[in-house]
Amino acid sequence: MTGTLYGLGIGPGDPELITLKALRCLRAVPVIAYPAPPEGDSLARAIVEPHLIGGQREIAIRMPMVAARFPAQEVYDRAAEEIGGELEAGRDVAVLCEGDPFFYGSFMYLFGRMAGRFPVEVIPGVSSLTACAAVLGAPLVARNDVLTVVPATLTPEEIKRRLAEGGEAAAIVKVGRNLEKVRGVLDDLGLADNARYVEHATMASQKILPLSAVGAEAAPYFSMILVHRRGEAWR
Amino acid sequence: MTGTLYGLGIGPGDPELITLKALRCLRAVPVIAYPAPPEGDSLARAIVEPHLIGGQREIAIRMPMVAARFPAQEVYDRAAEEIGGELEAGRDVAVLCEGDPFFYGSFMYLFGRMAGRFPVEVIPGVSSLTACAAVLGAPLVARNDVLTVVPATLTPEEIKRRLAEGGEAAAIVKVGRNLEKVRGVLDDLGLADNARYVEHATMASQKILPLSAVGAEAAPYFSMILVHRRGEAWR
Repeated sequence: MTGTLYGLGIGPGDPELITLKALRCLRAVPVIAYPAPPEGDSLARAIVEPHLIGGQREIAIRMPMVAARFPAQEVYDRAAEEIGGELEAGRDVAVLCEGDPFFYGSFMYLFGRMAGRFPVEVIPGVSSLTACAAVLGAPLVARNDVLTVVPATLTPEEIKRRLAEGGEAAAIVKVGRNLEKVRGVLDDLGLADNARYVEHATMASQKILPLSAVGAEAAPYFSMILVHRRGEAWR
Repeated sequence: MTGTLYGLGIGPGDPELITLKALRCLRAVPVIAYPAPPEGDSLARAIVEPHLIGGQREIAIRMPMVAARFPAQEVYDRAAEEIGGELEAGRDVAVLCEGDPFFYGSFMYLFGRMAGRFPVEVIPGVSSLTACAAVLGAPLVARNDVLTVVPATLTPEEIKRRLAEGGEAAAIVKVGRNLEKVRGVLDDLGLADNARYVEHATMASQKILPLSAVGAEAAPYFSMILVHRRGEAWR
């Protein structure tokens, strides 16, 4: 009997925004794995830290800072091998995923390597998308609104086209180092005043700012910009 | 001291997919309110039923079956008045919201009426969007994918345009009575084979079907179609 690989959605950052199901799984498995920086603490592990009961094996998937594709692929190859060894020995492994595992999560790199060979279960989590809307205190989408979710990692031309053609609401994810590019596109489209910036939604370090007030180099990876063309469509 | 109005995301249907935060709030408030059909049981209440501890006042917001705008507005006017009375008396009220309150939730009709007059807090929940991807066992969006979320209540022309211009992934929500319309559009665009249908994701009544296998009149309100243009982009 091989173990099961769990993709565990742990929510956007507030440890209380984990689901009962994810919490049960987190405490039941003998092995947890999580993304981590080259050195130091993992954000995903920090989110669930209040819930850990100890005695579990932990696998830190340490990603080099270099954004090149090949080192990352090697890291996932090695992680898949190590996690696969646990599963083959009959031990369940839960991979901690900030937000939801299937919403731009790095879990999919493990999923792609392992889904055919081992049983996989994904436990959905509260995504940054709705967490940002909640902390902004404004509906993300209402009634017949169309929502477009655009990664800030695309080219400026592509982001511009997606936003220009897009619906009443747009979410720009993965802002991070792409902040100036996105700000330029929103200025070009005359949408800067409709945009709101959130970083680390629901975490202690949460910040909500008008786009113009965000410093040029200040955006962390976990930041998002929500844009609404409409006024208050929910009235 | 007025009470606080909570928009409580209770998740997509599995009672275990409620967050710790929503559960704490659910049990702490003296009054809960929830959408309900003209007669009989509320789905939102049924989802949290295993967690209720009794002794709370319950306000069922009963929506007439007629989809006309004015009766619905009157129902929300009355509900806002009744809930407002509780808040003015200093009692917190939690409004139960399937999925997430700000993701096409009917909560926004109360929010629009009450947000200026009372303290409001929204507790985000697991949305149907990521719940459907989880039960399908396929990433919703990966890497640089653009996601377009389109309500099936739009005109066929509008749905067609949105899907044609849309990104690598699309989610068509509010399928219900609009199933044939959506199926026609997907056929026209040659996307029918890329579409997967889910109803009642994570509930006991969950069904996953190829689009062609869904009966013409069979789609309930809580159904969704996910469309991916790509193959397995996460590999």
